[in-house]
Amino acid sequence: MLKVAIIGGSGYTGLELLRVLRRHGQVQVVAVTSRKEAGLSVESLFPSLTGLFSGLNFEEPDITSIAKRSELVFTAVPHEAAMAVVPDLLQAGLKVIDLSADFRIHDQAVYEAWYSAHKAPQYLAAAVYGLPELYARQISNARLTANPGCYPTSAILPLAPLLKQRMIQHHGIIVDSKSGTSGAGRSPSMTTLFCEVNEGFCAYKVGQHRHTPEIEQELSIAAGAQVTINFTPHLLPVSRGILTTIYADLTDQNTSTEDILAALRGFYADKPFVRILPKGTFPNVLRVRGSNYCDIGCKVDVRTRRLILISAIDNLVKGASGQAIQNMNLMCGFPETEGLLQAPLYP
Amino acid sequence: MLKVAIIGGSGYTGLELLRVLRRHGQVQVVAVTSRKEAGLSVESLFPSLTGLFSGLNFEEPDITSIAKRSELVFTAVPHEAAMAVVPDLLQAGLKVIDLSADFRIHDQAVYEAWYSAHKAPQYLAAAVYGLPELYARQISNARLTANPGCYPTSAILPLAPLLKQRMIQHHGIIVDSKSGTSGAGRSPSMTTLFCEVNEGFCAYKVGQHRHTPEIEQELSIAAGAQVTINFTPHLLPVSRGILTTIYADLTDQNTSTEDILAALRGFYADKPFVRILPKGTFPNVLRVRGSNYCDIGCKVDVRTRRLILISAIDNLVKGASGQAIQNMNLMCGFPETEGLLQAPLYP
Amino acid sequence: MLKVAIIGGSGYTGLELLRVLRRHGQVQVVAVTSRKEAGLSVESLFPSLTGLFSGLNFEEPDITSIAKRSELVFTAVPHEAAMAVVPDLLQAGLKVIDLSADFRIHDQAVYEAWYSAHKAPQYLAAAVYGLPELYARQISNARLTANPGCYPTSAILPLAPLLKQRMIQHHGIIVDSKSGTSGAGRSPSMTTLFCEVNEGFCAYKVGQHRHTPEIEQELSIAAGAQVTINFTPHLLPVSRGILTTIYADLTDQNTSTEDILAALRGFYADKPFVRILPKGTFPNVLRVRGSNYCDIGCKVDVRTRRLILISAIDNLVKGASGQAIQNMNLMCGFPETEGLLQAPLYP
Amino acid sequence: MLKVAIIGGSGYTGLELLRVLRRHGQVQVVAVTSRKEAGLSVESLFPSLTGLFSGLNFEEPDITSIAKRSELVFTAVPHEAAMAVVPDLLQAGLKVIDLSADFRIHDQAVYEAWYSAHKAPQYLAAAVYGLPELYARQISNARLTANPGCYPTSAILPLAPLLKQRMIQHHGIIVDSKSGTSGAGRSPSMTTLFCEVNEGFCAYKVGQHRHTPEIEQELSIAAGAQVTINFTPHLLPVSRGILTTIYADLTDQNTSTEDILAALRGFYADKPFVRILPKGTFPNVLRVRGSNYCDIGCKVDVRTRRLILISAIDNLVKGASGQAIQNMNLMCGFPETEGLLQAPLYP
Repeated sequence: MLKVAIIGGSGYTGLELLRVLRRHGQVQVVAVTSRKEAGLSVESLFPSLTGLFSGLNFEEPDITSIAKRSELVFTAVPHEAAMAVVPDLLQAGLKVIDLSADFRIHDQAVYEAWYSAHKAPQYLAAAVYGLPELYARQISNARLTANPGCYPTSAILPLAPLLKQRMIQHHGIIVDSKSGTSGAGRSPSMTTLFCEVNEGFCAYKVGQHRHTPEIEQELSIAAGAQVTINFTPHLLPVSRGILTTIYADLTDQNTSTEDILAALRGFYADKPFVRILPKGTFPNVLRVRGSNYCDIGCKVDVRTRRLILISAIDNLVKGASGQAIQNMNLMCGFPETEGLLQAPLYP
Repeated sequence: MLKVAIIGGSGYTGLELLRVLRRHGQVQVVAVTSRKEAGLSVESLFPSLTGLFSGLNFEEPDITSIAKRSELVFTAVPHEAAMAVVPDLLQAGLKVIDLSADFRIHDQAVYEAWYSAHKAPQYLAAAVYGLPELYARQISNARLTANPGCYPTSAILPLAPLLKQRMIQHHGIIVDSKSGTSGAGRSPSMTTLFCEVNEGFCAYKVGQHRHTPEIEQELSIAAGAQVTINFTPHLLPVSRGILTTIYADLTDQNTSTEDILAALRGFYADKPFVRILPKGTFPNVLRVRGSNYCDIGCKVDVRTRRLILISAIDNLVKGASGQAIQNMNLMCGFPETEGLLQAPLYP
Repeated sequence: MLKVAIIGGSGYTGLELLRVLRRHGQVQVVAVTSRKEAGLSVESLFPSLTGLFSGLNFEEPDITSIAKRSELVFTAVPHEAAMAVVPDLLQAGLKVIDLSADFRIHDQAVYEAWYSAHKAPQYLAAAVYGLPELYARQISNARLTANPGCYPTSAILPLAPLLKQRMIQHHGIIVDSKSGTSGAGRSPSMTTLFCEVNEGFCAYKVGQHRHTPEIEQELSIAAGAQVTINFTPHLLPVSRGILTTIYADLTDQNTSTEDILAALRGFYADKPFVRILPKGTFPNVLRVRGSNYCDIGCKVDVRTRRLILISAIDNLVKGASGQAIQNMNLMCGFPETEGLLQAPLYP
Repeated sequence: MLKVAIIGGSGYTGLELLRVLRRHGQVQVVAVTSRKEAGLSVESLFPSLTGLFSGLNFEEPDITSIAKRSELVFTAVPHEAAMAVVPDLLQAGLKVIDLSADFRIHDQAVYEAWYSAHKAPQYLAAAVYGLPELYARQISNARLTANPGCYPTSAILPLAPLLKQRMIQHHGIIVDSKSGTSGAGRSPSMTTLFCEVNEGFCAYKVGQHRHTPEIEQELSIAAGAQVTINFTPHLLPVSRGILTTIYADLTDQNTSTEDILAALRGFYADKPFVRILPKGTFPNVLRVRGSNYCDIGCKVDVRTRRLILISAIDNLVKGASGQAIQNMNLMCGFPETEGLLQAPLYP
């Protein structure tokens, strides 16, 4: 059994790591840290887990202690906090999967333009961008995997294959995303109170969301050219799920919906968590809820010769904790799907 | 007191007409028809109205009888059914506000390409497109007003002023809309069951929704050139509200967010139901719920030089019944805001 | 125009007072206070009110200043804070409607057993319990009206007439209530985050909610005997609404559903905001949303000879701000329904 | 691998059986029937299962064919339809788990008073009531198991141990239940449309729900005396979950909350799916969602000496399909928890 620890486990991604790891046959959770909840049992903070993690308590994030007891660590702390702790974990010989943004952006200057000064830039080169459908080989050899953002996962998976194959133009791409509220985390906040979100719908951080450079980095790599996008996130009154609607111009005016679907099916033929939907059907966040799937549908609008691509993921699973466990499976030589084959919870 | 009748009053737009008319000081509802519910009291079908319409029962749609008793009729029947009844109402000397699509499209061929054969094309020329912010004068003189669709209202209001003033390019416009479920009506249907919609979000009729030609007609008039758009409707798990996110290219690369806001504020300066939001703030469907307002916000993305326009309406009010009553006010010489000044219900 | 002020206006009851007062023909809001938001415009804190309260800003709660400018004050601050400010307002000659619990409990000892030490007990005797359906005459003459709690309103209205008429036994009454989340207020809190409430349902403060003594006080008055109840509040994943299901034993085993309905209809015959539903139909919180109505239905279960009473209100309207305005109407000689006749917003 | 078939698999219980069986290591689904959807692939009706049941199509319910191919059948058809098909399945030598009400009520007269004429009364005696926490031994030997109703499961589990141990009185029990909307099924219906349920909450079938005699049967067995209850079901605006609040009188006035909790913990000590919560904490439907758990909390109200018991289940799992699979495990000698150990999906 692989011994794993979670640093910063009192939020929704921590809870979701625990939920999914519970079904994993080759892993034992030996520690979960939380400065705020240290001393509290996991079950009392997360009563949904009652009976499933008896004896496991939140503890202070003592890296020395964690390093002695575990082999792989999930860091689920906010950005900036992650880069303060990841170097010590690596130096202690542990494998690390970081769920923050701190090691996702290869270019330090880009990171600092959108976030803040980077405190551990020497690790940027070695960090692997943890999107297994694109980087499985590198992840298998990684000691530090930067787990992708939720929005980027939903945008890169449908777009990357088509950019690689030059089926769509790399300029003018629009990414219109809609996310469930768990993406905003579990800290008290007026803007995510039930009454502020329920029956509402709005855009936020229009044109300035920090996931923009992450999406652009990966699309640029796929396109072999600098990609600049419009990215508009919206807040959905659902707990889980991201639906991303993408508009892109075709390079060949004769490309059909079938051509795009065939290209996507080919690219993801042996990828267990990407489901390319039949022509005429489109994803729904409810149909991936609780699962590690990314569903993709598309349509070429013959009136405008534009491609509309639509993807759906569960932001807490494929958009965070599930993908982290998929990365762990690759990094540790487990079957890629181990612990992750739960069917979506519908309705 | 103006005597009004509602033909096809057993759906959500019928209920909403009744709700709003209840607060109107110069109108009396003399008849509400419904083939399916004929004989039933309005209060027993719509218990929310208990005590507010005592004695009013649904009746069969007998045009002769309706014509004798009323002066203005709201037709809230589906398209095709509307064009079967509107001519008789007009010939009987009544004013008509049709909430269906049957008289919105000026070009019969376009109507028939998207809908079906038109049975009363001789009335198309006289019908006025009932968007009061654009056509108040014509509506004032109209005998037949074609009440706009919900999605078109949300798309035309932010776009038309900017197309008229050549601030945005008329090609390449993308309209990404998200609608509450009441837009799907009140008839039993598996796809709009609570469990199918709740916690879900999806696109539907991608690239082929029937509101597309209606939006294009009005944008083309505003632009003075043929406009073809991408239109993607989505289904939101809320009862009311449409939020429309629009992407358009600027004609002048130096145009700023402030320029766009100033143009919109100028255009709508004396329009009581359009609220242009301050820079940096964006609409939320919850903030217009139950009201006749259309809120508009925008941002120029300096990285891509694209304009993002966002609007929010209540699809049953400004997107249907409220706008119909606004049209009635204009057609009958009442103050434009009579009965329509309710503040949004938040939360 | 009556000049009114709101002390503590930055929460949902403050917003709701503003929303409803906007439609009141005889009132002008001259001041709204909030220590936390002082200086901010009402419209920027409550964007739903954009355009409706131009120029009105939150200000510090300076009682001297408020007293000079206004004639009646709504105090919408938490309990304890209310009793600190109400005496000064009364001494300044103002009429006061207090939406907190501080003046609802006649017996100081009972108040102190459930809340805390009372700082202004000398005003308890003069304060009138502001349930207009029971105390209209006293309210008309009151200078200080204690606006009832939301749960108590929903429990007392169906029970009081039947206790007065000895149709039900005064012991053994069970009040099982379910409230929308706006009842928990607008302050940041983990337990009322969207993701914690959405798709959830639970009981809370079982057997120890502070509204218990308030319900018991009024039921005891109605019964002419000490009433002790079981009261279990639950949290509903809706924004607005309380549905209360009540179980009571009949005094006469032959009493029928019709008898109960007739008694309730008789008692509330001239009360504009209580709607007794027809036999076989039961209230739904959605059917009173946004309105000042209290809907009541009932059934005698012939198998157990128990009466089941069910009521529904909007907790922010009849359960708080609407009722406060109804009280203001009585205290100031306005028509009782002024500003309050909006039909429920359904769906 | 046990070969199982599902008769009537196009509803939510059918979908849920498939979802859970997918994780079961010792079962193969060989057939799913649906008259209405015959010929359609399971994945096209249930897109959430895309990729999980390739090649499985709905077929006509041909009992002869089903009997040849399978060893155990889940009948998930409505009551009346079940008793028409179960006898043939039994005669063909299959084991049957019936999810309808047809074989739950031991007394034919009671069944017929609440439902309709029974067409297969000769099987009533042999049918075992499939609540594994009470009847594990009988279920292990059963050929026909009548899977309990969702409401009864939530009411019987907290009450039966206390009635057996005479800790509560068997008369005067009140069961106030609140169910998510999936309990109403997947057929088109106006009353379960999203807009009719969302933001609403109401009681229905007050005092006359068909689950009443089922609850009373099992409570009477536990009490050793005839139990008659008040049962009030309500409709919650959530997809999944039942929360049941129960009021019962104590037999001994000195019984404490701790005594009740100890009795429940003792009774369910070795039952893997019943979780007795710590004192002062109460169940929430969200904390059991998607799982087979029944959470139970309680409080003795010292003011009235009444016990308040609260339980939560997922109506589609422990209230239907999960419990059916738990019964299958017992009937077939599999570990009781096989396939059923998924942690709840929170949030």
